[in-house]
Amino acid sequence: MACFVIAYVTSPEGAFMYSVCVRGHAMIAHSFRGELFGPAQRLHGATYVVDAEFRALELGPEGVVVDIGRASHALSAILEQLNFRNLDEDPAFANQNTTTEFLARAVFDRLAVRISAGELGPGSERLAALRVTLHESHVAWAAYEAPLSNRRGEAAR
Amino acid sequence: MACFVIAYVTSPEGAFMYSVCVRGHAMIAHSFRGELFGPAQRLHGATYVVDAEFRALELGPEGVVVDIGRASHALSAILEQLNFRNLDEDPAFANQNTTTEFLARAVFDRLAVRISAGELGPGSERLAALRVTLHESHVAWAAYEAPLSNRRGEAAR
Amino acid sequence: MACFVIAYVTSPEGAFMYSVCVRGHAMIAHSFRGELFGPAQRLHGATYVVDAEFRALELGPEGVVVDIGRASHALSAILEQLNFRNLDEDPAFANQNTTTEFLARAVFDRLAVRISAGELGPGSERLAALRVTLHESHVAWAAYEAPLSNRRGEAAR
Amino acid sequence: MACFVIAYVTSPEGAFMYSVCVRGHAMIAHSFRGELFGPAQRLHGATYVVDAEFRALELGPEGVVVDIGRASHALSAILEQLNFRNLDEDPAFANQNTTTEFLARAVFDRLAVRISAGELGPGSERLAALRVTLHESHVAWAAYEAPLSNRRGEAAR
Amino acid sequence: MACFVIAYVTSPEGAFMYSVCVRGHAMIAHSFRGELFGPAQRLHGATYVVDAEFRALELGPEGVVVDIGRASHALSAILEQLNFRNLDEDPAFANQNTTTEFLARAVFDRLAVRISAGELGPGSERLAALRVTLHESHVAWAAYEAPLSNRRGEAAR
Amino acid sequence: MACFVIAYVTSPEGAFMYSVCVRGHAMIAHSFRGELFGPAQRLHGATYVVDAEFRALELGPEGVVVDIGRASHALSAILEQLNFRNLDEDPAFANQNTTTEFLARAVFDRLAVRISAGELGPGSERLAALRVTLHESHVAWAAYEAPLSNRRGEAAR
Repeated sequence: MACFVIAYVTSPEGAFMYSVCVRGHAMIAHSFRGELFGPAQRLHGATYVVDAEFRALELGPEGVVVDIGRASHALSAILEQLNFRNLDEDPAFANQNTTTEFLARAVFDRLAVRISAGELGPGSERLAALRVTLHESHVAWAAYEAPLSNRRGEAAR
Repeated sequence: MACFVIAYVTSPEGAFMYSVCVRGHAMIAHSFRGELFGPAQRLHGATYVVDAEFRALELGPEGVVVDIGRASHALSAILEQLNFRNLDEDPAFANQNTTTEFLARAVFDRLAVRISAGELGPGSERLAALRVTLHESHVAWAAYEAPLSNRRGEAAR
Repeated sequence: MACFVIAYVTSPEGAFMYSVCVRGHAMIAHSFRGELFGPAQRLHGATYVVDAEFRALELGPEGVVVDIGRASHALSAILEQLNFRNLDEDPAFANQNTTTEFLARAVFDRLAVRISAGELGPGSERLAALRVTLHESHVAWAAYEAPLSNRRGEAAR
Repeated sequence: MACFVIAYVTSPEGAFMYSVCVRGHAMIAHSFRGELFGPAQRLHGATYVVDAEFRALELGPEGVVVDIGRASHALSAILEQLNFRNLDEDPAFANQNTTTEFLARAVFDRLAVRISAGELGPGSERLAALRVTLHESHVAWAAYEAPLSNRRGEAAR
Repeated sequence: MACFVIAYVTSPEGAFMYSVCVRGHAMIAHSFRGELFGPAQRLHGATYVVDAEFRALELGPEGVVVDIGRASHALSAILEQLNFRNLDEDPAFANQNTTTEFLARAVFDRLAVRISAGELGPGSERLAALRVTLHESHVAWAAYEAPLSNRRGEAAR
Repeated sequence: MACFVIAYVTSPEGAFMYSVCVRGHAMIAHSFRGELFGPAQRLHGATYVVDAEFRALELGPEGVVVDIGRASHALSAILEQLNFRNLDEDPAFANQNTTTEFLARAVFDRLAVRISAGELGPGSERLAALRVTLHESHVAWAAYEAPLSNRRGEAAR
């Protein structure tokens, strides 16, 4: 099985990993299907406080992982698509339980598309990985993290 | 205008105010009516992290404001009535916008009833005031506080 | 000594107090004059995470203390006047130590002006008091609170 | 019954209230007596994260409520008396349940003594009230607040 | 040296990692042996706010990492074994300094046993790794993380 | 490409990773160069709440990752070099944008030097990796993490 490590890579210059994280939030309604969910099968809702952590192996010439203004704007734009909505009626989530972990992946995927499209600026090809965390209360959260596909080919070589 | 102060009352024994606060949470769906609310007129939801702060002028013989176990249980029982529900369909809130400040009052009123009914134990007549705070996100919260009615008559004398 | 209480006022309808709080932040540079301040006499800076808590004795017809969107916008507009600046060079603060408590008052005063000017909407005459808290780190904060002047005359009668 | 309000006092100059708060912590062991406490009758322990909020009606010439360095030092000195100890063996607490609310009062009293003794500097006579909050977990806290005795006489006149 | 990576594994389907985290707490007494610990050699105590983060490479059919209700219940059951106790008298910890990092491992091990025993439900074989974090105050925490043994054999192949 | 994993290493004894984290803070002024930064090109400032997370594969004989007292002292000493200063005038940062991610690396490097010099005590050769996180507000943070060089040679073998 092929395996690679994004976190710590040795090289003549050494090993390193930078992160920058921005926060936003969205307030949504939804319901779940499956006995597993008990009373959460009823229509209810959540405030998701969302952290998007952008990771890079090195800093750009300005000394940043990513333009934090653009990163924050991209996260806000994605959360605006969810905010003040009933996710049960969103065609993008048809036949899906929009659990916290599922939504962490959904936000990740939408951020990855924006990164690939260059929305985060010229240095965003430096971004090696992304972690999206959704806090659903003071006692529970979920996250999804993965290497970014624009780095995957290179790193796996 | 009649006026009284629950917070600081001078007396031969001095002035003082104790608080004990417990936290719970509920995840609900709802919508608002009124142009004021903009996109929040749509069906959406929230996680409310709820603090109930019980206040007393003095401690009971055991050194407590209130039995914290009973206080926490009473708050949980009230939040369970809201948790995993669409508040738009709750007859208790018919024709009401269940805003965060409105719900803070609703939780207050339900706790006050339980206190009056003696659910918080023999020393709960010591409770002078209550503050209920609902955190709706990392950037917004609302609260309702008032003297407890079992004290109002006495204090206003 | 004349005295009045904004927090708890008895009346035939009872006593009560609602709050709504919104959060923003600003990142500033400044220095202090006075031996009291030790190394803080040097040019340094702070991130202020700012809470503005609006208080009212009753809710408006929509069930709100204040239009939270307008409240948040007003706070942001005030913080934008401070953000990314050296307060030592701001004429508004000439000959002043811009301590955390002083700035809490400054934000309060600017919010009070906007409230008086009607920026927070038609129901803002309901606002009875305001509390502004500036968190300067995880171990220190300062606040300023007062009745709002549009209520002062009425309440003191 | 004599009554006075420390929070909001009308005067020709208006009504106002400043706060400055510093944070510290202590890690202690103790046990409680009384059936009320259930399993907390056993020897156990707590981390108390302690906030001391100093309140004044006006700022001193330097623009501060109190010298924050001295305030923080005074709080630390008091917490050091509790830190890494079994409170059941502390003669100061003999025959007392050292509940969170009781300890909030104990820290308050010790701070008040230091304030009276002038440890917080020349302007500490401005201090009108003090609130001490002990966070015992992410879901419970207790507090004690009162006017400071050096102000009590004056205010009650 | 044999090495494997649980975090990022490339495969035709790509690389990914989900987390779900639940929080609980326990209040304990203990003491430490060794000059290293200074005053913490005395009997004292702590509130541990405990996060258990469950990790999986993919979601189950319901869209979850793990049944969050069962996960939370398992964590609570383990913390109940510690809560309101003097760990110096717990035979499970004889001749051990129950430091925060040691206890993070102890909670991890007990959760791993419950996962292996199937207590977290049918999909728990998906769980690839676990991270347990104990917050001992607002300024210090410790954690233990490792792959789960039911995955270890498979992953190391 | 040479690759190694510090996080999870299989061995006859199994795979594991401990962390201990301590927190401090510093209040600084600075400005940035580059259009990317918009208004942050002006002289402004920040409070950085700094977490230093020390990681080890195993515990020492006392049951600790590192002497938490020495770790905290080392972090404080480094933050004291930054605290209450204008970083634009610090020769160590000449011609550098002292962004949050850059400073996370700077604090990392200075901690690594102190670890190598033995300041954290006899067991600090156990330390495998370090993560330094700087929280710049309630909505943004940055981090730098890497294996510690004293382990790098060994681990890469």
